[in-house]
Amino acid sequence: MNPLLDALRAALGDTHLLTPERHDLSGWERDWRQRARGRALAVARPGSTAEVAAVVKACAAHGVAVVPQGGNTGLVVGSVPDDTGTQLLLSLSRLNAVRAIDGDNLTMTVEAGCVLQAVQEAAAQAGYLFPLSLAAEGSCTIGGNLATNAGGTQVLRYGNARELCLGLEVVTAQGDIWNGLSGLRKDNTGYDLRDLLIGSEGTLGVITAATLKLYPQPAAKLTAWAAVPTMEAAVALLGLAQQRLAAGLTGFEVMGQFALSLVDKHYPQLRVPLWRESPYCVLLENSDFESEVHARALFEALLETALEQGTVTDAVVAENLTQAKGLWHIRESIPLAQVDEGLNIKHDISVPVSRIPAFCAETDALLAREIPGVRLVNFGHLGDGNLHYNVQAPAGGDAAAFLREQEERVNTLVFDQVARFGGSISAEHGVGSLKRDKLPHYKDPTALRLMRAIKTALDPQGLMNPGRVL
Amino acid sequence: MNPLLDALRAALGDTHLLTPERHDLSGWERDWRQRARGRALAVARPGSTAEVAAVVKACAAHGVAVVPQGGNTGLVVGSVPDDTGTQLLLSLSRLNAVRAIDGDNLTMTVEAGCVLQAVQEAAAQAGYLFPLSLAAEGSCTIGGNLATNAGGTQVLRYGNARELCLGLEVVTAQGDIWNGLSGLRKDNTGYDLRDLLIGSEGTLGVITAATLKLYPQPAAKLTAWAAVPTMEAAVALLGLAQQRLAAGLTGFEVMGQFALSLVDKHYPQLRVPLWRESPYCVLLENSDFESEVHARALFEALLETALEQGTVTDAVVAENLTQAKGLWHIRESIPLAQVDEGLNIKHDISVPVSRIPAFCAETDALLAREIPGVRLVNFGHLGDGNLHYNVQAPAGGDAAAFLREQEERVNTLVFDQVARFGGSISAEHGVGSLKRDKLPHYKDPTALRLMRAIKTALDPQGLMNPGRVL
Repeated sequence: MNPLLDALRAALGDTHLLTPERHDLSGWERDWRQRARGRALAVARPGSTAEVAAVVKACAAHGVAVVPQGGNTGLVVGSVPDDTGTQLLLSLSRLNAVRAIDGDNLTMTVEAGCVLQAVQEAAAQAGYLFPLSLAAEGSCTIGGNLATNAGGTQVLRYGNARELCLGLEVVTAQGDIWNGLSGLRKDNTGYDLRDLLIGSEGTLGVITAATLKLYPQPAAKLTAWAAVPTMEAAVALLGLAQQRLAAGLTGFEVMGQFALSLVDKHYPQLRVPLWRESPYCVLLENSDFESEVHARALFEALLETALEQGTVTDAVVAENLTQAKGLWHIRESIPLAQVDEGLNIKHDISVPVSRIPAFCAETDALLAREIPGVRLVNFGHLGDGNLHYNVQAPAGGDAAAFLREQEERVNTLVFDQVARFGGSISAEHGVGSLKRDKLPHYKDPTALRLMRAIKTALDPQGLMNPGRVL
Repeated sequence: MNPLLDALRAALGDTHLLTPERHDLSGWERDWRQRARGRALAVARPGSTAEVAAVVKACAAHGVAVVPQGGNTGLVVGSVPDDTGTQLLLSLSRLNAVRAIDGDNLTMTVEAGCVLQAVQEAAAQAGYLFPLSLAAEGSCTIGGNLATNAGGTQVLRYGNARELCLGLEVVTAQGDIWNGLSGLRKDNTGYDLRDLLIGSEGTLGVITAATLKLYPQPAAKLTAWAAVPTMEAAVALLGLAQQRLAAGLTGFEVMGQFALSLVDKHYPQLRVPLWRESPYCVLLENSDFESEVHARALFEALLETALEQGTVTDAVVAENLTQAKGLWHIRESIPLAQVDEGLNIKHDISVPVSRIPAFCAETDALLAREIPGVRLVNFGHLGDGNLHYNVQAPAGGDAAAFLREQEERVNTLVFDQVARFGGSISAEHGVGSLKRDKLPHYKDPTALRLMRAIKTALDPQGLMNPGRVL
């Protein structure tokens, strides 16, 4: 018998400690994009913060590494064990209670294992908006969202997961519980441990619960789709929309022509508008706290000005919620259309918004020159300077061979450009295992040294999600 | 000769190293509220980030403590040297360049020594809003604002200094330069060093520059003043205003009757409205991106509903900018009126907004019971749950004796109540030396242990602003 497993069984009960001898652990061991398959020593499924603490404490005592996992929907291989069979997979999925909703304080306190969509729905039922929204919301958990500082489609207005969190409950690497749950908007009593833990990808401790910001529900949401003649025009339109709609501008997505052509090809029933006429289309969302009539008047005045200024060449405003959902559905179908088209290389980069046009012009040209036939699937959250600047293998060739031979080179070309433009090689997905080896090349060396010092200080045994980030 | 001073003189030139033998250093040695007067070994006034690094490196080599100082307007004795004459005062005031304004990216990059008002003005000249705003804005520096995570009157909409900063340039305790200046809205490449440094009060490193968020300028700003019958009504009015004005609600201040009576008494020319009829008044600010007409219509509809619901008993809306400034001036005159009234005990607390009414009811009664004659000057940023719950000595008595005898007891009574209500004993002013000894009593012990581990990891010699925070 393994003494750690005995201790865990005693702490959790037999039902909630799953071992490879008796259970199929593949759902926990395989990452979302099927890029990695590890082997876990066991899967622990604690049902309370105290049990999480007991698990981590036992692992610390036995020198066993802990890999925390939420919905396991991450894109950078950050939540599955390695292939040694020595790491404990700590699933947070049973910690899924909504502990409290405080309307007057505009906060809710939820446990880490709550699925994001359940958090959104609990907020909506109480009459409030929890604005974090991303493609995996039906499966990802709020703990994972916080551990990776998830982004999504509403960041322009509401910020990343970090900006939506007021307080955390955390189990440290030593198995102590830090109760930092707080509904406070202001608290200057010491170092910002909350934001340090957020985005640390489970390498400094385990997030077990969080107090989140709520917002009033808008009275109306309108969506528009505009064809823009250039990326410069898209940036100018963004500035105009920010001036006119201010905080009402809750979404601003850009989509390149080739990206939309893939949606048109693989999902013709979605009827992608305006894509044939223009190198880029933009999706704008206006959340209005007065009325739909007011929202529509603002939107139409905005688009009229943009048409006059030439930053928009044509536009449609969704007439109803169904049409609006249809437009968002097109945007969200780009990754699926990419899969249908075949293997591709994904990026998640950011540069300052002002530099996006030059970045795209230069990098498009560079890749076309260096890798003949390359096809760029460029789309993303322009309002945040965040592009999924993806690369599809040349048409008709052997896509698998292309990836094998060119992925590293494509990454280097793109990342070097990102660095030249003062950007980030991981805007919203995190580092995980996938980009860990890139950090020493692209991150400021002093920042890396500070990060390593913090890691060593808070997790001296190096047992928290090892091999991630650093 | 002192070898450190020789090294500093070589690095900075004779003009920018001030020693007590040759200069009057009292302006740097005395704190804003005149509560402390230290003695500096010398005052170093570097003119560039490289010079800051040279100063810190030299101090590290000689084992000499460094006390960074911006505008020296802090309220918790965090930026003056102790009285040993052994600490180097590092003034950032010569680093005062606005390095860049990037309109399309809505960012500006400024050096730490820029006075806050100069930052606001540079933004305004370029057509943008930098929203951080607080009483000391004519003297405080952005470096100090970030080091203390300053709050102020616009936090409700725009957040504290932390939320307004996208990137930092920092000199570490070892004298290395971390270039984390970034205009990126999204960057998930590792631990959040930016937010760790922000609010660390110079104990982990020296902020030398920052990239800040800009916002479009609103088309109109309107201010209203409302009498509310109870604190419960004030909280209900806040909720209504948040629903109706959403992000347009940029200010929501509450002022107790006694606080306003002091303004009326000492500054009768300010003509405080509505204060005689009501236990509390509220100041609301609406920033509108359409027009003044639109702002006024929204505001009037809001106040009409509030009057119907009984959360407001009477209200005035400023007719013009002069009237609006007059109303804000009343709010900002409360601390001055307190000084005119005599010695008092200041607090800077926060509790969840939803718990403010119960907190005030219980704590008002407790203090009245425990300390007969006590007079509460209760006012603050209700939208952030942040009250300056100040205590004025009983009328007619010896105020100095009252403070001597009762200050500790009053603090304990108030802070224990804050703790009971899940609040913070320092909402926006920080810890400094003043509240350092309170932290072990009121802060979660695990959080304190994590903070100490981080301090030791990043500043193993303990030379960065020692005796502050921890």
